Amino acid sequence: MSLELRIFGIEGLPEITAGVPLASMIAEAALGQSQGLEDGDVLVVTQKIVSKAEGRVVAIDPADPDAKRRLAESEAVRILRRRGDLVITETRHGFICANSGVDLSNVAEGYAVLLPLDPDRSARGIRDEIQRRFGYAVGVIISDTFGRVWRRGVTDVALGSAGIAAVVDLRGGSDALGRELVATEVCIADEITAAADLVMGKASAVPVAIVRGVDPSWLRESSVRAEVVRPATEDLFR
Amino acid sequence: MSLELRIFGIEGLPEITAGVPLASMIAEAALGQSQGLEDGDVLVVTQKIVSKAEGRVVAIDPADPDAKRRLAESEAVRILRRRGDLVITETRHGFICANSGVDLSNVAEGYAVLLPLDPDRSARGIRDEIQRRFGYAVGVIISDTFGRVWRRGVTDVALGSAGIAAVVDLRGGSDALGRELVATEVCIADEITAAADLVMGKASAVPVAIVRGVDPSWLRESSVRAEVVRPATEDLFR
Repeated sequence: MSLELRIFGIEGLPEITAGVPLASMIAEAALGQSQGLEDGDVLVVTQKIVSKAEGRVVAIDPADPDAKRRLAESEAVRILRRRGDLVITETRHGFICANSGVDLSNVAEGYAVLLPLDPDRSARGIRDEIQRRFGYAVGVIISDTFGRVWRRGVTDVALGSAGIAAVVDLRGGSDALGRELVATEVCIADEITAAADLVMGKASAVPVAIVRGVDPSWLRESSVRAEVVRPATEDLFR
Repeated sequence: MSLELRIFGIEGLPEITAGVPLASMIAEAALGQSQGLEDGDVLVVTQKIVSKAEGRVVAIDPADPDAKRRLAESEAVRILRRRGDLVITETRHGFICANSGVDLSNVAEGYAVLLPLDPDRSARGIRDEIQRRFGYAVGVIISDTFGRVWRRGVTDVALGSAGIAAVVDLRGGSDALGRELVATEVCIADEITAAADLVMGKASAVPVAIVRGVDPSWLRESSVRAEVVRPATEDLFR
């Protein structure tokens, strides 16, 4: 396990619109900063710019107070709770979140941004393109901001991943006293994403961060959907 | 907002027992490494060593398969769910977690470690002692490893804090397009804690990490209990 990690915010990306070559824009912005890019870096990319590049933006009537909630419900496979304007839903991907991830911030008035259709695929696409065009073997995580059931305040979590493990299974390893560890499947994708948010903020124009120094054994094929999304059969609270 | 963050794992602490001067041991271990200590550093300290230093260790019969569950229930104010050996409880602090945080790993056989009685106070004690004896103004977070309702894999979260904000309220700020942001109270204490876990691991002897480069405006008095613990009245799922 590496004892030092560095996190760099990436600035200077232009406004992202449907069809732009996002992976190249990210790599060029990273290479334009002093930290550059290195094999083994993990790029955390906010869902907002991925959705915009993929054209997951829809018109919404700004005069209709129910428009956002109806859109959120149309993006859901299940509605878990309602309170006022807020609706807690299960998305097609299996994420449980507020308003199906539908977001009206950082987008022109009259439009809403939806989650990517397949965030793992989005991450693979960016990872593959950076490998092919720039020659760097990086991990990619697509991030979004979710609330938590028992704790106040939002944190960033991983929606999709490529080239970096989502969950690392430490079961069967030994603790520092040589006794067996149990129940230590760690969601490092969410921990890396949370770390990246510390240099991103919500309002600043820093939609990408590089996390450098993760354990090399974590660099492998992965899927947030397969590793992190908890099936309803395992769920004690749905 | 700082665009670069560095995270350092702190090694070389001896085995922690009740009554040791934990703050001094942490500061001396940090100062013995090349990164040293700086004003504005945030020290993330695993609950396990805090509890041991505070004597929150109890004997438990290793031959009794129900001993851990009974101990967990005795540490709870409420039991939310049971499944097999696992009990999801609300602790006296208001945390919702597995087994009231009672832990048998990284402790001698026949003993269990309980959560600190008041983790915010534990954090303040370490912060104050490092300020007084070593002259550094640092933030301190006490961390533990919790599961999540909707997502597989555990992540580290903050149990207590001092000198570093737990939740930062970005409501009323503007997004990058100048529109109002809503619902952006970010739990940076949990994000810092998750980041620190990336250099700690579960089995390695790295019970403390330094997070360097957090936004200076986040360095203030704080309380995880007051800022992060969600009251039952706000809770949609309890």
